[in-house]
Amino acid sequence: MVEVEATLTRACVAEGLIPAESGEAILAVLADPASFDLGAITAEAGNHATPVVPLVRELRARVAPEHREYVHLGATSQDIVDTAAMLVARRALGFVIDDARAAARACAVLAAEHRDTVMSGRTLLQQALPTSFGLRAAGWLTAISTPLKGLEGVVTFALAVQMGGPVGTRPPAVAGLMAAELGLIDPVMPWHTDRSRIVDLGATLAMLCGALGKIARDVSLLAQTEVAELREGAEGRGGSSAMPHKRNSVAAVSVLACTRRTPGLVATLLASMEQEHERAAGAWQAEWGTLGELLSLTGSAAAWARDLLENLEVDAGRMRANLDTLAKAGVAEAASPAEHLAGATELIDRALGDFNG
Amino acid sequence: MVEVEATLTRACVAEGLIPAESGEAILAVLADPASFDLGAITAEAGNHATPVVPLVRELRARVAPEHREYVHLGATSQDIVDTAAMLVARRALGFVIDDARAAARACAVLAAEHRDTVMSGRTLLQQALPTSFGLRAAGWLTAISTPLKGLEGVVTFALAVQMGGPVGTRPPAVAGLMAAELGLIDPVMPWHTDRSRIVDLGATLAMLCGALGKIARDVSLLAQTEVAELREGAEGRGGSSAMPHKRNSVAAVSVLACTRRTPGLVATLLASMEQEHERAAGAWQAEWGTLGELLSLTGSAAAWARDLLENLEVDAGRMRANLDTLAKAGVAEAASPAEHLAGATELIDRALGDFNG
Amino acid sequence: MVEVEATLTRACVAEGLIPAESGEAILAVLADPASFDLGAITAEAGNHATPVVPLVRELRARVAPEHREYVHLGATSQDIVDTAAMLVARRALGFVIDDARAAARACAVLAAEHRDTVMSGRTLLQQALPTSFGLRAAGWLTAISTPLKGLEGVVTFALAVQMGGPVGTRPPAVAGLMAAELGLIDPVMPWHTDRSRIVDLGATLAMLCGALGKIARDVSLLAQTEVAELREGAEGRGGSSAMPHKRNSVAAVSVLACTRRTPGLVATLLASMEQEHERAAGAWQAEWGTLGELLSLTGSAAAWARDLLENLEVDAGRMRANLDTLAKAGVAEAASPAEHLAGATELIDRALGDFNG
Amino acid sequence: MVEVEATLTRACVAEGLIPAESGEAILAVLADPASFDLGAITAEAGNHATPVVPLVRELRARVAPEHREYVHLGATSQDIVDTAAMLVARRALGFVIDDARAAARACAVLAAEHRDTVMSGRTLLQQALPTSFGLRAAGWLTAISTPLKGLEGVVTFALAVQMGGPVGTRPPAVAGLMAAELGLIDPVMPWHTDRSRIVDLGATLAMLCGALGKIARDVSLLAQTEVAELREGAEGRGGSSAMPHKRNSVAAVSVLACTRRTPGLVATLLASMEQEHERAAGAWQAEWGTLGELLSLTGSAAAWARDLLENLEVDAGRMRANLDTLAKAGVAEAASPAEHLAGATELIDRALGDFNG
Repeated sequence: MVEVEATLTRACVAEGLIPAESGEAILAVLADPASFDLGAITAEAGNHATPVVPLVRELRARVAPEHREYVHLGATSQDIVDTAAMLVARRALGFVIDDARAAARACAVLAAEHRDTVMSGRTLLQQALPTSFGLRAAGWLTAISTPLKGLEGVVTFALAVQMGGPVGTRPPAVAGLMAAELGLIDPVMPWHTDRSRIVDLGATLAMLCGALGKIARDVSLLAQTEVAELREGAEGRGGSSAMPHKRNSVAAVSVLACTRRTPGLVATLLASMEQEHERAAGAWQAEWGTLGELLSLTGSAAAWARDLLENLEVDAGRMRANLDTLAKAGVAEAASPAEHLAGATELIDRALGDFNG
Repeated sequence: MVEVEATLTRACVAEGLIPAESGEAILAVLADPASFDLGAITAEAGNHATPVVPLVRELRARVAPEHREYVHLGATSQDIVDTAAMLVARRALGFVIDDARAAARACAVLAAEHRDTVMSGRTLLQQALPTSFGLRAAGWLTAISTPLKGLEGVVTFALAVQMGGPVGTRPPAVAGLMAAELGLIDPVMPWHTDRSRIVDLGATLAMLCGALGKIARDVSLLAQTEVAELREGAEGRGGSSAMPHKRNSVAAVSVLACTRRTPGLVATLLASMEQEHERAAGAWQAEWGTLGELLSLTGSAAAWARDLLENLEVDAGRMRANLDTLAKAGVAEAASPAEHLAGATELIDRALGDFNG
Repeated sequence: MVEVEATLTRACVAEGLIPAESGEAILAVLADPASFDLGAITAEAGNHATPVVPLVRELRARVAPEHREYVHLGATSQDIVDTAAMLVARRALGFVIDDARAAARACAVLAAEHRDTVMSGRTLLQQALPTSFGLRAAGWLTAISTPLKGLEGVVTFALAVQMGGPVGTRPPAVAGLMAAELGLIDPVMPWHTDRSRIVDLGATLAMLCGALGKIARDVSLLAQTEVAELREGAEGRGGSSAMPHKRNSVAAVSVLACTRRTPGLVATLLASMEQEHERAAGAWQAEWGTLGELLSLTGSAAAWARDLLENLEVDAGRMRANLDTLAKAGVAEAASPAEHLAGATELIDRALGDFNG
Repeated sequence: MVEVEATLTRACVAEGLIPAESGEAILAVLADPASFDLGAITAEAGNHATPVVPLVRELRARVAPEHREYVHLGATSQDIVDTAAMLVARRALGFVIDDARAAARACAVLAAEHRDTVMSGRTLLQQALPTSFGLRAAGWLTAISTPLKGLEGVVTFALAVQMGGPVGTRPPAVAGLMAAELGLIDPVMPWHTDRSRIVDLGATLAMLCGALGKIARDVSLLAQTEVAELREGAEGRGGSSAMPHKRNSVAAVSVLACTRRTPGLVATLLASMEQEHERAAGAWQAEWGTLGELLSLTGSAAAWARDLLENLEVDAGRMRANLDTLAKAGVAEAASPAEHLAGATELIDRALGDFNG
């Protein structure tokens, strides 16, 4: 929020709306975010349903009286909170995207390495026909790629500055300058009550979680005692408090513990789109914690998924052995799986080509 | 589903997988969808958790024995249902997009006509500062535009053929031919358990509902007895069973009755992304009715919103009168609103330019 | 709705609000629900955001002019729809409760029969320590029992008549008489905007679905090819369109396809509690389809779960064989499981006692 | 968690499972919760998907070697976390219930004081027919009462000890002793994968939020500039950062900002009921943060609602004046409202009687 107030001040100086001297005085205080009394601001935030009122009050108190009228010039609380949320989201997305990309790369490595590792394809939780573990990993790769591109698109096209003033009638020049400085989109209109940007961000995060949750579910199923085709490889994990023989799929469980919490949060964001008039009473405020949770849960899920995939142990022998069960059940393809996997290999190549190209 | 089976048959003939004569025999039966015994297929669908098994059984029974092995060649039930769902979605989206576009056009007309119609901007449900009704309508326009472009993008980039075979290992050639014939995307990989396409569609539908719900909420608030700035204009609507003096905002209420049901449905689709192995046991099947509801509710919401916006009655005098309340409360801008609305006018032009350009 | 109008008419006659002759005339028309023009009522319902307006209009048209003022006396549309919804819910709950009770009984039978059938307990999808299949079934039984009692409580304590009149100020005498006739609760107050009854009903239905979904998930996991401890037993089910060797868990999949759709619907009902003033604009109307879906999905889930449980095939030999895997991993309890299951047997008896007593 | 381990230790000593001396040694360490290294436990929790493993490890390290085998005797991590969650929930519910009860009392006071304060009843956001503000407040009272009783029932009947051991086969004696000491329910069975208690708690919290959200929505609507019948009364609230003439409904907005986040969280809890086998991989872990959010959001909503209701300013003159609008529109009842409100007064008495009795 301090960064947004500073950018606003600079843009107003550039537009001639704030005298240079006043701008400097305000920016001098804003240059030291740590100097603000966070405890007092937090304590007072509740009385205004926003932390911006006490923040601006403190900022005004700390500049000389002649500069006070230029503090927070022409802005409304929501301008500051929304723009700050965009900056926070962009920083958080940096970590999310890094980990998701690394998870995708790990899938690509598995797909390439296990192009010829045959295993039993399973449908409705039953062994069905042969496939390869490479194809399974290529499927994971492709499923991550869509929301990953989506999040990159959100950063580039959806994260926008907000500077419409109290009822959204502020001329757009100041917003334009701020957008350029902050590297955010300059929106066609203020988006005080048009929350598609927030929903786009939240739904894409949850879509990534959906892809990661599918991977974690697959790993936890393939790591079952009776299946034993995969195993989490990271050291020092998964000991049980009561059963020393067990090795739990800690990373997969942690991914699922995060991903399963995101659909309901997206529902909250979607329901919050119904915002009244120029700025809303409740629906906007309900977004704050919800968006924070979505960023944090997706970040955790991506980090755990990366860890899971980069350390995954594949038991090709066990995959082959399980496939023999199918052969014994009379499934001809299972007896000579390699002959039936030309399509799988072609699809792996397509997936890898799509990811690399 | 019949259309998908026919396209599959033609593609297999083209690829040399089905003899021309068998292809013709199969296509002859498929040429008459109405000839299938829908009651019997429906009754038997439950025993297989899919209607495709009895459909294929009937199809096989109706061709000569020597052609039977070529019916449904290399396909799995999910290939047929998923591709059929894409065709259904595309047809439904045609109506949704038409009505949403008309609603957007109606907003553009309102924005242009009411560029200078001053009214009270309201924040947190309180009168705040002057704005124009044109700017409000421009905001509605911009809010509809994002999901509208999103839906157009879904049609172009997300709706894909599905033809992976039982465990997704089918070589992609047949899918490619089918995609070309059906005008669907040829996916990099089968997407049996990568449900981002469905989520993309569902979330974008709900995002449009969010934008329409905001408009309906605004209209219902501005049509309150004490505010009376807007009024639904369509004839023969809104009579009360008990209170003849009332004129209810039927269209607005109908929009809201639809839009409020969509966030929870998107949560269902997102939760359904966690699909096991090559094809899922339950998560996929939970999508069917959910996606149908989303298409139907969004279609209804868009049709009602179009009706609402095309027939909206604006009482500019009442808007001005309500603004006087604010002026009497000592808000200088409310006494001479036009002087403060240069920014609003500039933003309206941006919104109209963005929509038209 | 016709039944509610008739009950209202009788109560008004009893209270002396409608002359006996007028009451008889109105009731004569209402005695033949099939005589109403459903198509016309449906077509006109949209213009009023309720079917009650055209229903009442038709009813008025069909009685002599001197009786017309007594039709729908003192009622508002919502009175009719809400009371009718309670009647529909009660009828639907009869089926849901019957099937859920039968499912519980089937669990009790399995628990008693398999008191000594040892199997591997599994945690985090890994074999852990011995348990008995009887205890697993007793757990299912207990999990069904809570929402089953909950639904019985909903029928007895939550389903209430609604007859508050247009703004909820109608004296409660008529509602009291109607409640007595219909066997519904006579509420302290009209509940036009107090939707806890609907939420109580919806959340309890979804809680039952949660219990049934857990059972279906367990069965689908224990029926996996590599585990093979359970198998759906119903004849003629689960054939695959492409893989004749497979036997899919059709009932379990069908349960899950229903149960996974309910959490999002409950979110919609909860969000709809925020209803404005005396009667709401949109939030109430959003309940209708949602509640219908919840009843229908829970009814299907309960019927499928009953079928699943009444026909379940248990392979005790395979359970014992899988437990040997654990014994070979050095888990002493797995080598002599019966010695460690005194607690399990005690718990089974508690569960059966609780269910029977 | 420390309290649960201590209670477990005492119960095991009482049952003769732990020697008295070992019990004392373990309890001596547990007597000082602050002595545990929270940072280290937190840091290590991720490696086990539970904080119990490092907690138990530290506890074992701090007792003499001969006592170590008696630490955490026969328990699994979930036993500790679930029982601890029940204790946390009970403490949190104390605050929630206190504030909800105070909010209900404030409604009762308003209902009694404003028994004869006539106002316009509003339906579908339009003025409809007269009612009294007392009846509105009585409706709020009744709506709070249901979930309030529900939460009291949850405390008495749903909050249960968990002590089933690794796979739920532990004999129930220890759980019984712990339940008696902790004042929790002794469950029929371990509920490791029967999560109806959690859902019951969560859904009842959200139902209370629904009732509070309805009140906040009503207040924010009745406080609109053009309506002005209600006004938040607390001092020092609601100043705007940009518009000094405004007085925002801060408490109402804060209630809504909390209540609107709860439906999606309940959906997460309901979806989490589908738990595998004896203890789940992901679904259980997804509950933790979700339940915490529900308790915290409902607690905040109840505190804000209490504040709102205890300080509400009612403008009876304005209510009467707005009703005149309706009279001018030709609604006879609005001209002599008192004559039509006998039913309202009767209903207020019923609501107050129900609350007090």
